[in-house]
Amino acid sequence: MTRKLHLNAFLMGVGHHEAAWRHPRTEPSRLTDVRHYQELARIAERGKLDSLFLADGVALQGNVRHNALGGLEPLTLLAALASVTDHIGLIATVSTTYNEPFHVARKFASLDHISGGRAGWNIVTSASEAEALNFGVERPAHAARYARADEFLDVVGKLWDSWEDDAILGDRAGGLYADTGKIHPIEHAGHHFAVRGPLNTSRSPQGRPLLVQAGSSEDGKEFAARHAEAVFTAQQTLEEGQEFYTDIKRRLAAHGRQPGDVLVLPGISPIIGSTEREALHLEKELEDLIIPAYGLAQLSHMTGIELSEDDLDRPLPDVPTETEGAQSRRKLVIDLARRERLTVRQLLNRLAGGRGHRVVAGTPEQIADQLQEWFFTGAADGFNIMPPLLPLGLSDFVDHVVPELQIRGLFRYEYEGRTLRDNYGLTRPASRYAARLEAAVAG
Amino acid sequence: MTRKLHLNAFLMGVGHHEAAWRHPRTEPSRLTDVRHYQELARIAERGKLDSLFLADGVALQGNVRHNALGGLEPLTLLAALASVTDHIGLIATVSTTYNEPFHVARKFASLDHISGGRAGWNIVTSASEAEALNFGVERPAHAARYARADEFLDVVGKLWDSWEDDAILGDRAGGLYADTGKIHPIEHAGHHFAVRGPLNTSRSPQGRPLLVQAGSSEDGKEFAARHAEAVFTAQQTLEEGQEFYTDIKRRLAAHGRQPGDVLVLPGISPIIGSTEREALHLEKELEDLIIPAYGLAQLSHMTGIELSEDDLDRPLPDVPTETEGAQSRRKLVIDLARRERLTVRQLLNRLAGGRGHRVVAGTPEQIADQLQEWFFTGAADGFNIMPPLLPLGLSDFVDHVVPELQIRGLFRYEYEGRTLRDNYGLTRPASRYAARLEAAVAG
Ligand SMILES: Cc1cc2nc3c(=O)[nH]c(=O)nc-3n(C[C@H](O)[C@H](O)[C@H](O)COP(=O)(O)O)c2cc1C
Ligand SMILES: Cc1cc2nc3c(=O)[nH]c(=O)nc-3n(C[C@H](O)[C@H](O)[C@H](O)COP(=O)(O)O)c2cc1C
Repeated sequence: MTRKLHLNAFLMGVGHHEAAWRHPRTEPSRLTDVRHYQELARIAERGKLDSLFLADGVALQGNVRHNALGGLEPLTLLAALASVTDHIGLIATVSTTYNEPFHVARKFASLDHISGGRAGWNIVTSASEAEALNFGVERPAHAARYARADEFLDVVGKLWDSWEDDAILGDRAGGLYADTGKIHPIEHAGHHFAVRGPLNTSRSPQGRPLLVQAGSSEDGKEFAARHAEAVFTAQQTLEEGQEFYTDIKRRLAAHGRQPGDVLVLPGISPIIGSTEREALHLEKELEDLIIPAYGLAQLSHMTGIELSEDDLDRPLPDVPTETEGAQSRRKLVIDLARRERLTVRQLLNRLAGGRGHRVVAGTPEQIADQLQEWFFTGAADGFNIMPPLLPLGLSDFVDHVVPELQIRGLFRYEYEGRTLRDNYGLTRPASRYAARLEAAVAG
Repeated sequence: MTRKLHLNAFLMGVGHHEAAWRHPRTEPSRLTDVRHYQELARIAERGKLDSLFLADGVALQGNVRHNALGGLEPLTLLAALASVTDHIGLIATVSTTYNEPFHVARKFASLDHISGGRAGWNIVTSASEAEALNFGVERPAHAARYARADEFLDVVGKLWDSWEDDAILGDRAGGLYADTGKIHPIEHAGHHFAVRGPLNTSRSPQGRPLLVQAGSSEDGKEFAARHAEAVFTAQQTLEEGQEFYTDIKRRLAAHGRQPGDVLVLPGISPIIGSTEREALHLEKELEDLIIPAYGLAQLSHMTGIELSEDDLDRPLPDVPTETEGAQSRRKLVIDLARRERLTVRQLLNRLAGGRGHRVVAGTPEQIADQLQEWFFTGAADGFNIMPPLLPLGLSDFVDHVVPELQIRGLFRYEYEGRTLRDNYGLTRPASRYAARLEAAVAG
């Protein structure tokens, strides 16, 4: 079988471009309307995409005066989308920093049951101060957040395994519903968590949801190498993409994993036109709708530099050392400004489309060329598609780029399996407790 | 308008009877199948019921060897049901003891958006030791749990109010998405929680979900009087029902509330036959499927007495004083055994149908008579319907009891409004911040 690429639809309100809500082709009032997301899910499924994905944070971040913020909680929304789709994977972002593993394990197991095996978890550690303030704590340090995340994954893994696959007997006549020898208290007692278990939701179709990770700091990449099965990443140039890809794959061996066990999916915001001119026109239209005050605040937040309108036509000032927020995004933004010698205004325009993700304007063929190049030159196993406008940018992608990829033999014509793991060509994990029993019998 | 009664469908796996999973008319393999619940939701909506409700606990409780346990997390499941229903309210149980108010406020606001204003929250405080052990803490004392619940309600109330109704401007030309003067940090700093806010989900259709409460201890009733808009309760006799009803309504004045502000809904498990004989036959069938070991463990847990099979044909032994678990259910069970001089086996049979809720076997007319009597004699504003078998017991209720109630003028023929609050005839709350501003302008 030839290697096929994997495509994830990253959904965000009415589009990824920060001015999407001002564009005449969007309807910002649909931000909290489930029908909007149902429509997006159906479009993505029509395009045979592997999955759709919702980002999340647990604070109102960014200035809502100038952007359409305040949408829906991802897990709740994805459960609603499960009912109207059949094949597409459903990936929700949930933080390990302000949650309890028991709740998280249970909600994902439930979503996996409800969707027939299509749940995925984008694991994040909540980099911002604003989030900490909604939970009455000081923001934990970067390393401490990742240490907690590690133990969190250990606990949820045990909980998902706590019911073996064949624990349920359903023997009505004998009055035996389950074999309690195959339902295990996990008795976890660690540094951050003490959890007895077992989970009170039975083992789900995928055994555990697909695990996705999106931090690119040193800690983030090590975390991905240990736990993730797919990695979302923001990479601006092909060289950087190749370097990141190689780096992630190289780390796996130390954890007894194979290169194929983790898929690397860089983000791309495709601005699609039937001609290049049309694509550039749309890009310009969006640029003209940018509100500098909004981007300035975002950029100040990302970099830790206080910026004002006076700075717009100057280069990015020197940057103080800051290590506790989102490290990799900060580095990417600063590198971009330095490399291309951008003024603050130019940098804002570059970030408005994808907050640091690559933005490519062109025809469907040109977009497909870009994807193909990264896919064939060791920079990507697939892509995180971030349409600038929604639903328009997604339907353009599905109706024009996907067929081009199919013709080139790069993408599926039909779903091959039933679960999200099937879509990504990943295996279903066995319960660690079942393995232990077999080992005990064998030994 | 004549007073109409309100009906809530309390869904539980394949039925409320603890032996339901062994009965040939159920399919226990559907316990984690969303289509089972979609079917139940559609039946309840066909019957014009006000709402459906899912109980919950955050531990595997009861012996799964002998009962179909390990189902789905309610909020996730209700989001999936929102997509396939239009009118029925969706009430999820969530504990205030092991959750964070920010997450809970957000998930319910999201469910309320997704369902177009049909979300309700059954607020519980998690009475069991087993739950505490999944969160690495000692079970907090009864009073401490309710104190935390009180502050929890204060915080979530502020978060739901944090976006005023008219905060969103959606002014594309002017680049003004929201009036940030109408989106309020809540700056809560209390004994249990410190939460800055605002919520990052905009104000939902109902303003806040319907608040339901189900504890009947002294603390529980006071909590209901302060916060609840509907109360679920287990009452065995008409006199007890009247006493409880009067008690709840009487408490409201002290909190500036009217008797109509809180609906009292006692539970009832109707065992329906087209003749009385048929109903009694079904009741006997279910009784014969009971596994005493299962009920004994439940009863030991509820009462705090260690019971064994040797105790089955003796009266319930004397009961040690225990004050930190679920107080009201324990009292109800002990009172029932004493009042009717039941042996342990007889008590188990009485509890198997509804875990302490009233069980009534009879024809649709006889069931309707019972509901009518309680409704007309000051014991109920409506009922929490707990079908012994699902879906069968629910479709029997909807197809045979509901029409009888309609003919008697006791129940609606059509939904009158769109939201859960509309179904229950309750008002939509204003944001406290809007009120404060108006007061400031007026003053
Ligand atoms: C495609 C993509 C999506 C992300 N989505 C989220 C998100 O939804 N919520 C979040 O808190 N962080 C999100 N992040 C940020 C990372 O998860 C991570 O927290 C951040 O990059 C800081 O981690 P680091 O210091 O390891 O780089 C995302 C990153 C990428 C590349
Ligand atoms: C109809 C009904 C449903 C209930 N559902 C739940 C539930 O889902 N989860 C839970 O922990 N407790 C549930 N309870 C128990 C109560 O919420 C409460 O925790 C318990 O009665 C102890 O409170 P008390 O000591 O104030 O009586 C329910 C009670 C009733 C009457």
